[in-house]
Amino acid sequence: MRDVAVIGVGMQKWGELWEKSARDIFVESALLAMNDAGVDTLESMYVGCMTPGLFDAQEHFGSLMADYLGQKHIPSTRVESACASGGLAFRLACMDVASGMHDVVLAGGVEKMTDISGSDATHALATAADLKWEGVSGVTFPGLYAMIAVAHMAKYGTTREQLAAVAVKNHDNGSMNSRAQFPTKVTIDGVINSVKVADPLNILDCSPITDGAAAAIVVPADMVKKFNKPGVKVIGTGHATDTIALHDREDMTTLAAVSEAADQAYKMSGKGPKDIDFSEVHDCFTIAEIVVSESLGLFERGKGGPAALAGETAIGGSTPINPSGGLKSKGHPVGATGVAQIVEITEQLRGEGGDRQVKNARVGLAQNMGGSGGSSVVHILEVM
Amino acid sequence: MRDVAVIGVGMQKWGELWEKSARDIFVESALLAMNDAGVDTLESMYVGCMTPGLFDAQEHFGSLMADYLGQKHIPSTRVESACASGGLAFRLACMDVASGMHDVVLAGGVEKMTDISGSDATHALATAADLKWEGVSGVTFPGLYAMIAVAHMAKYGTTREQLAAVAVKNHDNGSMNSRAQFPTKVTIDGVINSVKVADPLNILDCSPITDGAAAAIVVPADMVKKFNKPGVKVIGTGHATDTIALHDREDMTTLAAVSEAADQAYKMSGKGPKDIDFSEVHDCFTIAEIVVSESLGLFERGKGGPAALAGETAIGGSTPINPSGGLKSKGHPVGATGVAQIVEITEQLRGEGGDRQVKNARVGLAQNMGGSGGSSVVHILEVM
Repeated sequence: MRDVAVIGVGMQKWGELWEKSARDIFVESALLAMNDAGVDTLESMYVGCMTPGLFDAQEHFGSLMADYLGQKHIPSTRVESACASGGLAFRLACMDVASGMHDVVLAGGVEKMTDISGSDATHALATAADLKWEGVSGVTFPGLYAMIAVAHMAKYGTTREQLAAVAVKNHDNGSMNSRAQFPTKVTIDGVINSVKVADPLNILDCSPITDGAAAAIVVPADMVKKFNKPGVKVIGTGHATDTIALHDREDMTTLAAVSEAADQAYKMSGKGPKDIDFSEVHDCFTIAEIVVSESLGLFERGKGGPAALAGETAIGGSTPINPSGGLKSKGHPVGATGVAQIVEITEQLRGEGGDRQVKNARVGLAQNMGGSGGSSVVHILEVM
Repeated sequence: MRDVAVIGVGMQKWGELWEKSARDIFVESALLAMNDAGVDTLESMYVGCMTPGLFDAQEHFGSLMADYLGQKHIPSTRVESACASGGLAFRLACMDVASGMHDVVLAGGVEKMTDISGSDATHALATAADLKWEGVSGVTFPGLYAMIAVAHMAKYGTTREQLAAVAVKNHDNGSMNSRAQFPTKVTIDGVINSVKVADPLNILDCSPITDGAAAAIVVPADMVKKFNKPGVKVIGTGHATDTIALHDREDMTTLAAVSEAADQAYKMSGKGPKDIDFSEVHDCFTIAEIVVSESLGLFERGKGGPAALAGETAIGGSTPINPSGGLKSKGHPVGATGVAQIVEITEQLRGEGGDRQVKNARVGLAQNMGGSGGSSVVHILEVM
């Protein structure tokens, strides 16, 4: 396999983009990435999008995006793994380049979620759970993650304050991100006293409904010198699945798909958790960031909550997590999230983090997740 | 890139499988393919499915299918390119093996279409067209292909009888296929006098709504000797896109995505149209088979209709097309169709075609298509 690098990235400000369609949003971010890389022609592209059929009555999404991007006739593939669709699109773009099939490949992700009614968005998102065992019982994602939180609290003594600390830290980071949907700071008290959604999770423990897209340009590592931008090398990739139904798992307090995908990426890169300078992880709920940080091996099991409360995961901490603001503050247009993690890591490794810059960042890890952990994709990137 | 081969295939009898869920149907065909290959463990899998969200209220489909297949934790990727989703899943499985990432990879396709009401199925399928320009105007796929038929008749003199001849030939072939949904013979008069759907297309010009799945096991070509079954080598792959809106094309009487994908596959394989012993093509409507046969270069433009009427595309003809019965007789569970083409080609090249066997078949071509030609995937396979 050939070595692979990211040579350009792009995303717009996320939020309720009512004046733009899904195709507008995708093209906008893709052009930002192409402009960043300095390319106007793609050889192949991958589009992560969870459910354009339910959100937008539009499938055949890869072809449509290639056409609207002015790249008609190139191979364009839409991939879906619920909220991990974007990370998976990035992985396939890397595989495409690694195989030798194509040299200049775009990985994009998009979701347009706010133009349908609230009940429909809940229905669309619930299709990431097991319809026959979870959906028909009325359980939705706040409920599933609440069950994980209760189990984690019972087993490890994780506290309500520790959950809130994740939200506070991510909103602190997001307040410095001009592209974040909610660049607003919150407090521990504010999170704990916000509206209850599914006990113990409150509204400020939950990532929002968002319109947005993100894109990255992937090329062979040995082609990087032809471009004006510094390349960022993709040194590890992992992808794993689990039961999408939570009750089928042996242990609700860890995420086996995350650990398995991370193991693959660590093995391929020759790195371990101690070598990771910072991470972008899938904090769809505050408890998710805590469990993921443990499943990745960044902290021992049960230590993720105390670490968050102690500030270890802040930008200036020992183990920075989600300097972008994460899904919590930046927003969570599900198909775009995994690619946006690559955008942040690339910019950080190029030293373009601005006020959010992680000092001496040389190795970054991206962890994207589908549903309640039924799938996960992990990538490790390094400065060249 | 490593050379790639198919070592096992499987599919069940297609039809209205009301007693089985989408997951049942997928697992059934996947187990047939794994049994055919003699493997019980997969390293990776790809699932082609157009719109499980709209048909089945179930996304996160790759993980779900891996779990129900007893392959929990392996990377499993769902891909979508409307009715070309299955062909695209097969292409990605080949790319995965070719890249060196994995050795034993399943490509599967599935669609469960008959458990929802007729109006919903029409809505779900219409998402393969451009919602904003075609869907909102009320045009559905019979209408789009009827426009292609009218244009082809006007430009080349293609006749109503020639369209009917495609249906007659495919039902003749399908009558010998125990897995076909409609293994019933039809006549030219029967097709011409069947109920009008969208002028000039009648109900017997249209492929049906179907439940079904299909699967193939892909391995490195140099690993084939470890298996009991003869391998079939994948010597060419191509994937291309076009506008998904028909009115955006320069020429409605040819399919540019098909020609482009075929050119890629011909170039990679070193073969041309004259080297193809038989083809499985995307006859979602009778006119589609005619236009595709021309776009693939099997016939000159305007000669596809006369060739069909003259029997040249019959199993014993000079250019056999759809010995399986095609989408028309075998059925068209959209996500499964592209993989089922690989099943037929593999069995034919292994000499297991039974009454439908194409004599001296050494090279077969599969052409799968999304929407009205907004995407197409072409593969060329050869006996080893």
